[in-house]
Formats: sequence, C-alpha cells, structure tokens
Amino acid sequence: MRTMTLQAPSGACKIALGESIGNLKGYCGGADKIVAITDSNVRRLHGEKLGGMESIAMEPGEAHKTLETAEAIYARLLELEADRSSFIVGVGGGIVCDVAGFVASTYMRGVRFGFVPTTLLAQVDASVGGKNGINFRGYKNIIGTIRQPEFCICDFSLLGTLPKEELRNGFAEAVKTAAIGDASLFSFLEGNWDSAFALQRAAIEKVVHDSLQVKMRIVSADEGEKGQRMKLNFGHTIGHAIEKAAGIPHGEAISIGMVAAANLSRKKAGLDAKEAQGLEKLLKEIGLPTHLGAKKAEVLEAIRKDKKRYGAKIRMILLERIGSARMADVGLGEMEGVVNDMC
Amino acid sequence: MRTMTLQAPSGACKIALGESIGNLKGYCGGADKIVAITDSNVRRLHGEKLGGMESIAMEPGEAHKTLETAEAIYARLLELEADRSSFIVGVGGGIVCDVAGFVASTYMRGVRFGFVPTTLLAQVDASVGGKNGINFRGYKNIIGTIRQPEFCICDFSLLGTLPKEELRNGFAEAVKTAAIGDASLFSFLEGNWDSAFALQRAAIEKVVHDSLQVKMRIVSADEGEKGQRMKLNFGHTIGHAIEKAAGIPHGEAISIGMVAAANLSRKKAGLDAKEAQGLEKLLKEIGLPTHLGAKKAEVLEAIRKDKKRYGAKIRMILLERIGSARMADVGLGEMEGVVNDMC
Repeated sequence: MRTMTLQAPSGACKIALGESIGNLKGYCGGADKIVAITDSNVRRLHGEKLGGMESIAMEPGEAHKTLETAEAIYARLLELEADRSSFIVGVGGGIVCDVAGFVASTYMRGVRFGFVPTTLLAQVDASVGGKNGINFRGYKNIIGTIRQPEFCICDFSLLGTLPKEELRNGFAEAVKTAAIGDASLFSFLEGNWDSAFALQRAAIEKVVHDSLQVKMRIVSADEGEKGQRMKLNFGHTIGHAIEKAAGIPHGEAISIGMVAAANLSRKKAGLDAKEAQGLEKLLKEIGLPTHLGAKKAEVLEAIRKDKKRYGAKIRMILLERIGSARMADVGLGEMEGVVNDMC
Repeated sequence: MRTMTLQAPSGACKIALGESIGNLKGYCGGADKIVAITDSNVRRLHGEKLGGMESIAMEPGEAHKTLETAEAIYARLLELEADRSSFIVGVGGGIVCDVAGFVASTYMRGVRFGFVPTTLLAQVDASVGGKNGINFRGYKNIIGTIRQPEFCICDFSLLGTLPKEELRNGFAEAVKTAAIGDASLFSFLEGNWDSAFALQRAAIEKVVHDSLQVKMRIVSADEGEKGQRMKLNFGHTIGHAIEKAAGIPHGEAISIGMVAAANLSRKKAGLDAKEAQGLEKLLKEIGLPTHLGAKKAEVLEAIRKDKKRYGAKIRMILLERIGSARMADVGLGEMEGVVNDMC
C-alpha cells in the first residue's frame, strides 16, 4: 500500500493506493454514523464488502446525475438522521463520486466525506481533485462545488469486475494525463498498456500512481481552475459535446476529442505530426475510437453550451508536445472546422 | 462611508457601510455580465436603483427558499448565458441573500458574487459570514454551503421603506450579537435603541457597525462553525423551532428563544438574574415578544429535527453574562422543561 496526500485550499485528501475496501471504516475518523452512497450495480457487485454500513443506492448512469437524485439522497439522509457529525462515502464510478461529493458538500452546509472509486476512470481521475457536479437541463456538471474528499481508497481488486469497455474509459483518462503532463508515463503506456489492461498489479499501480501524481500537482497549484487546472480538460471540450450529442461513453468521447484537439494543436501549438500520430495510434491500440461518424450539428450546439465558453470563444487545451499542454481561446467559427475534420 | 474586511478561509468580504446601491457596479470587478437576484417586493421598491442590470426576481418569503426556486434561477441564468466570468448580486433580505449565495456557490461550481442587503436583519447579520441555505422538506437551511461574498454594501437609505415589524427583526439580531459579544453595544441599545429605530444616521450606523464587528471577529476565527461560531446561534435553536412551529417572523421567534435561553443560562451558566431581566426588558421595549402562547408539541418536534442535534443532545448557546456566551449540550428531556416555561 502506498499513500499520497493532495493539499489544496479546500482541504487535504489522502490517497491510499492498493488499500482494501475492507479497511474503509478506519478512514472515517471515528464517525458515529457512516453512510455509503453508491449505485445499484456497485451494490450488487461489492455491497457485502461494506460490512453492514448503511447505504443509499442511486440508479446507475449519467441520466440519473440530476438534482432529483440528489433530493432523494438528501431525503434518505434525513430519514437516517444523518447529522453534521456523520460521514458520507461515495462508493462507485465517476457519476457516483460526483453525486456523493455534491450531496456531502451541500447537506447541512457540508459534512465529511471520502471516496472508494470502483472504476479505473474514477481511480485515475474522477475521484481525485475535489470537483463534483450534477447535470441540469442537458448541461453537464453545471451545478456543483469544489471540495476535497478526506480520502480516496484505490482498491485495485475492485477493477476485476469491470467490463472491458469500462476499463478502456479509464485508459482514455490515463492517456490524457500522460499527454498533458508526463511523457515518461506516455512511453510506458505505449509499451505496456496491455499488461495494465490485463490488471497486472505492478503495471496498473504504475498507471494509477503516475496519473494521479500529474493530477495532484496540477490541482494543488490551481484547485479553483483559474489557470493550469484547465489543462486536465484536454480532449474534454469536444469530448463532452460528443458525449452529449452522440450518447457514447465518456472515455470514447474524450478519445475522439483528444485526436481532434491534437490535430488543432499541430496547426496552433506546434505539435509535431509524429507525436499527434503516436497519440492516435495508442488510443486505437487500446481499442478506443478516434473519429466520430456523424452528429456534426449536435456536437457544435453542445460546444456552444459548454461552461468553458467565454463569449464567442471556447477555451481549448492544446498540446505543444507529448507531456506539455497550454490553453488557447478558439473562436466558434474555427471550432466548426475542427468538428468537420473529426466527422 | 466606512469599510471593513472580513478574512475567512473561503475568501475575503469587503463590507461597505453607508455606501450607496448606485455604486454597485464598481464592486463587481469589471465583470461583463452582472445578474441581480432579488424578490418581487424588492424589485418593486428598489429595482430602478439597479441601473438597468439584468435581474431575476424570486417570490418573496420563507416558503420560496427552496430547491425549486434555485432551479428556476439556474434555468434563467442559462437562458441569460451567464458563464464563469459572470457576477451575481443578491439584492434583498436574508432569504434572497441565502438563495443568491447558494445559487452563486453552486452554478458552474461557483461564480463570483456579492450582496446588497435591503433589510436591517440582513445588514446586521444574514448577509455577512458566508453561510447560505435552502429549506428542504420542512427542514430549515438543511442544504447549503459556506462561501464568502466578495462584498456587502450596507446602504442605510434602503431601510427607510421597511415596515416597523421588519425593522424589529433586525433589532432582535443586533440584541443577540450584543448579548453574546459586546456589552458596550448592549448598553448603547438600552439607551439609544429608539434613535436607531428611527433610523437616525449615527445611531443606526453604530448598531450595524458594532454588530458586524462582533460577527466578523467570530466568523474569521471559525468560518466552518466547528466551535465559537455556534455562539451566533444564541436564541436560534429554540427560535428556529418556534419560527417553524408557529410561523412567526424570524426576529420575533429568536426574541422568544433568547429569553428562554437566558432563563436556562441562569440555571446552567451562572447568568445573573438582573442581566436576564435586562435582556427581556430591552426586547419588550423594542416591541418584540418574549413568550410563546402555545404550540408546545410542535416546537419540541422541530427541536428534535434541528441540525444542531448530536444524538440525544442539542447544542445550545448560554450566556455567562451580557457580552459573553458559551456552548452547552442540553438533553432533549431538559429542553422540554425550557419549552414548558416559555409557553
């Protein structure tokens, strides 16, 4: 077991890599009442590992990441007489962590909370960094706060039940993190993604550890996303729009978004053609899509509604080279060209 | 014009005493889009002072301090294309500030915001300190966050349109603040409350300034209400229960709650009988009620649902003497006696 601590203005988060979910209670600081927030899939697969802890299961899926779900959880917390001294644990993928983090940050003006991410995507990305969010009227993560969980337990044994498609989603975020901030992790992925994909312990631990190190470095310097934290959005501006317009999984959508952003980076940020091709090749090998067939108009409409839009410009993240990213404001007109090339 | 700055972990708040609402835009840091959140009463009385600023008016009153209202405001902000660079200003009483603060703290994971409190209660208390809150299924302020507004403009000229009853609500909070933290303000109120009540400039400015100084001292030391910030709840544990059970205005309810808590303070915290009587006398002179006729069972039920309950105990604030308060955990059984004496 390895631990790392993320220090940020809204709090500190202890990340326990290779810890077992069985030791969860020991992380909750002696709280009288611990309530797990999870979804019905995760409860079925891992519920018994919660050792009789009270749990609230939401319906799985992005469509349930809503204020209605948050309200149902608030109501259940009140029934359970959860109070300010209670502790909330989000046990699940990125959606569960988003909802649990939002509820914990707003119930009684904020109670203590931690996460046990059960997907690779949540382990390498979504559960760490303190952002939470709820969708509202078709806008993704438009309501939320930024607040650090007290801990994040990455139990690699939980990944064994994941479908391959879900595992690929996690690899998309690991590739993203390597591309913006760690060229050596990128090389490791090029040479060893298949060992990590097979969940060989040393390989998967390296992928999660190194990805989180990049993320921690960025978040601790810019928790509120005023500057460099936006780099973590590489592939996400177009990716979120694709996710919404085409209804495909997050990892697949940002895979396409990264390739589109890399092509724009060649024109606007001096990214070498070989490196752009290397990114596309790695994503393809992992089995992730790199182009979108259709839905041009819907993708553009979703980009227009992005919360990273400032007036007529969209803030995009471009690669200068593998391991180094920067921000650029791109006009909505130019974005149309990018979307055309992608489809 | 006098300014004071509240420094707290979640941010700094500049308080401008005697500033004019006409200078509001200058406080919004050059934001492209400023949106005022207000209520229909305030818009009717003071709307033209907003100088053509976009505004969203909620229905007035505690019954509308709900997630439904927050959702309607989120939807309107999206229609107005408010983004992360936009600025929200809450213009109204405590309810408007609570809702506006919550929306601003959760829309797009938090946008910049400030307040122009239009009631005395909001000027001396509700608009300062960073707490916001929404009622949910009969529980008061059960959903919310703690985040400082960037500014708070106390324009005394706005108080001229307040009904006497509403002005009395503000005096109840000023008396509370003096009772827990400023014996000299308490003496000033005993001798001069009528001048302040008549809105004579020097007197009202002293009441607001000195009340806010106590509040700022407490909030800057304990923003997250882990300890001494709870002192600001003097009169509020019972007061909130009365407000909910009897449906009377906040100030009247906490006036009764303060007298009940002072009587308990004589038994449990050594408060001198004369000082307890002095508190009751001042509240009566101002025209505030000091006893509740009925609704015993409803008040007790509401106390049981209080978010300051820890297991079988309620955290109460007791007075040691005028100007000094401390916390005490009081059993639910003992609270029954207090409620009996009060009715």
